[in-house]
Amino acid sequence: MKATLMYAAGDVRIEDVPDSVITEPTDAVVRITASCICGSDLHPYGSMRSDQVPAHMGHEFIGIVEDIGSAVTSVSKGDLVVAPFAFSDGTCQFCRAGLQTSCEHGGFWDGLPGEGGQAEAIRVPLADGTLFPLPVAADSELIPSLLTISDVFGTGYHAAVRGGVHEGSTVTVIGDGAVGLLAVLSAKRLGAEQIILMGRHQARTDLGREFGATDVVSARGEEGIEAVRDLTGGFGTHVVLEAVGHMPAYEQAFGVVRAGGTISRVGVPQYEDAPVGFASIFGGNITLTGGPAPSRAYMEELLPPILDGSIEPGKVFDATTDLDGVPDGYRDMADRTSLKVMVTP
Amino acid sequence: MKATLMYAAGDVRIEDVPDSVITEPTDAVVRITASCICGSDLHPYGSMRSDQVPAHMGHEFIGIVEDIGSAVTSVSKGDLVVAPFAFSDGTCQFCRAGLQTSCEHGGFWDGLPGEGGQAEAIRVPLADGTLFPLPVAADSELIPSLLTISDVFGTGYHAAVRGGVHEGSTVTVIGDGAVGLLAVLSAKRLGAEQIILMGRHQARTDLGREFGATDVVSARGEEGIEAVRDLTGGFGTHVVLEAVGHMPAYEQAFGVVRAGGTISRVGVPQYEDAPVGFASIFGGNITLTGGPAPSRAYMEELLPPILDGSIEPGKVFDATTDLDGVPDGYRDMADRTSLKVMVTP
Repeated sequence: MKATLMYAAGDVRIEDVPDSVITEPTDAVVRITASCICGSDLHPYGSMRSDQVPAHMGHEFIGIVEDIGSAVTSVSKGDLVVAPFAFSDGTCQFCRAGLQTSCEHGGFWDGLPGEGGQAEAIRVPLADGTLFPLPVAADSELIPSLLTISDVFGTGYHAAVRGGVHEGSTVTVIGDGAVGLLAVLSAKRLGAEQIILMGRHQARTDLGREFGATDVVSARGEEGIEAVRDLTGGFGTHVVLEAVGHMPAYEQAFGVVRAGGTISRVGVPQYEDAPVGFASIFGGNITLTGGPAPSRAYMEELLPPILDGSIEPGKVFDATTDLDGVPDGYRDMADRTSLKVMVTP
Repeated sequence: MKATLMYAAGDVRIEDVPDSVITEPTDAVVRITASCICGSDLHPYGSMRSDQVPAHMGHEFIGIVEDIGSAVTSVSKGDLVVAPFAFSDGTCQFCRAGLQTSCEHGGFWDGLPGEGGQAEAIRVPLADGTLFPLPVAADSELIPSLLTISDVFGTGYHAAVRGGVHEGSTVTVIGDGAVGLLAVLSAKRLGAEQIILMGRHQARTDLGREFGATDVVSARGEEGIEAVRDLTGGFGTHVVLEAVGHMPAYEQAFGVVRAGGTISRVGVPQYEDAPVGFASIFGGNITLTGGPAPSRAYMEELLPPILDGSIEPGKVFDATTDLDGVPDGYRDMADRTSLKVMVTP
């Protein structure tokens, strides 16, 4: 079968690899019908370490269950399913608490040798806890929106939930990538009154306004911080949703958060150490929260408004390609000529 | 009047200084009857910067109102009052939200030139918002406990509140100083089921047990982390209350917190940068919170159980001195021969 492998920063190839097969009784094999390239894939695309290559890429997908192990009970052959970007048993104390990314027996697709979501098929461990059946056909026009609950919408929603966004909150969203835009949509759903989107690409920030942003700030750094403060009486916003992961975005975050407020990070930090002392977050009693989103935990909640058409998170996809076009898709996303590329193997 | 001045690390002197007087209509002058030395005073005592000297020391006190400015309405001459370690107007949006340490017009005593709490008297700005009347006499045996709501009890309580401690929580408290011990007492009051106190001084950890600690871990670093994990099924505790402020305490904190849990810091960080990336707190969706405690916000709540004798936070004082003994008090606290020294000018 065909799969996407990354050999080095900037070097993405489509290759023939062994077919995915059941290896554990709790596995399923899914024939992938829709997948995509993630903003987080751009981190290794920009600076991959040589001890990680070649890596099977992709962690967001919808597909049809092709085979199941003997212990799998919740999905059957032929079911259309979506998978979150982490697999999980669904039964451990962390899964029961809605933190499937810390499942005692689960993991991230990146850690699963020989499997990836930008491929024709994938082996899904712990299928009962991981896969979420979808009540539509594989060619439904809702597929792009449904694919977002695999990662980007779940991640944006996690940012807003962890940030404590509620009726009347003021919110800054840092980053106009797919996660940032869907953090806007999430903040809007949770009742935020003011949503300031910090981003520089007008096509994206226009979509952000459609999703609920009340203000757009294109300036960055000190100038951007000043602009957000001007929009908030000088105080900053109650909540900041940081959907980038680079240090300048974090510095912006503590620059625009209000005393007593919360920074919720979902952009995978590309740093380990960062300012958290008196001058940055301690003095103002700022809370720093967030982490990898347990997308699986939000699927039940996010499905109905997509099915009834009240939200359309799939608008973040502005390009579609087959597997052979995936390397170009990476390049386009890295160049910011595409916002998010859907892949239909 | 006599006051405590710090000239350099380790150099504390009692000197005659000009009497505190009303300078603004919102001021009060308080004749101090009970004060104390704070664990946070030990930070400059260990490593004071030369641009800060000489500094008037002390930010916790009880005293009798001796004079009030023309605009002061909530306290009268002769009232016994306690002050939090930050002054605040009590009316701005942050004060109304219970975050008096971020008051738009307030500040910390350290930032008030020529005034300090380890002295015979002090000028209190914004007296209406700052001072809290006490319904006892200045020689009441409850004074030590009432003095703790100025800072150390309010700070320990803030740690527990911000950490989200509730019925059934498991909690690690890092630090067996007065704040750590009162964080134990606070966690107990909020219903914590397991309270693991990390500390090495048996007299202190014994008091910690009296306050509600269920376990004591005297080991530090990796060994200490291992011990806490052993006590918690390998997972760590839901909440960690960090009451030290040095980097090893922070490293311990993320070593013993459970995935999805919260680190609440109230020890003033003696670092600006610290690990907050995937390997430390992001990967496990750990929340980092805390900051300078708005002690004023908790006084109404913490007063009744002290008055009725159901708690005795004043047990953290294990020595009392007059002003002339303050320099020795600093030394004894730095040497850990005293836990916390009360000062009766």
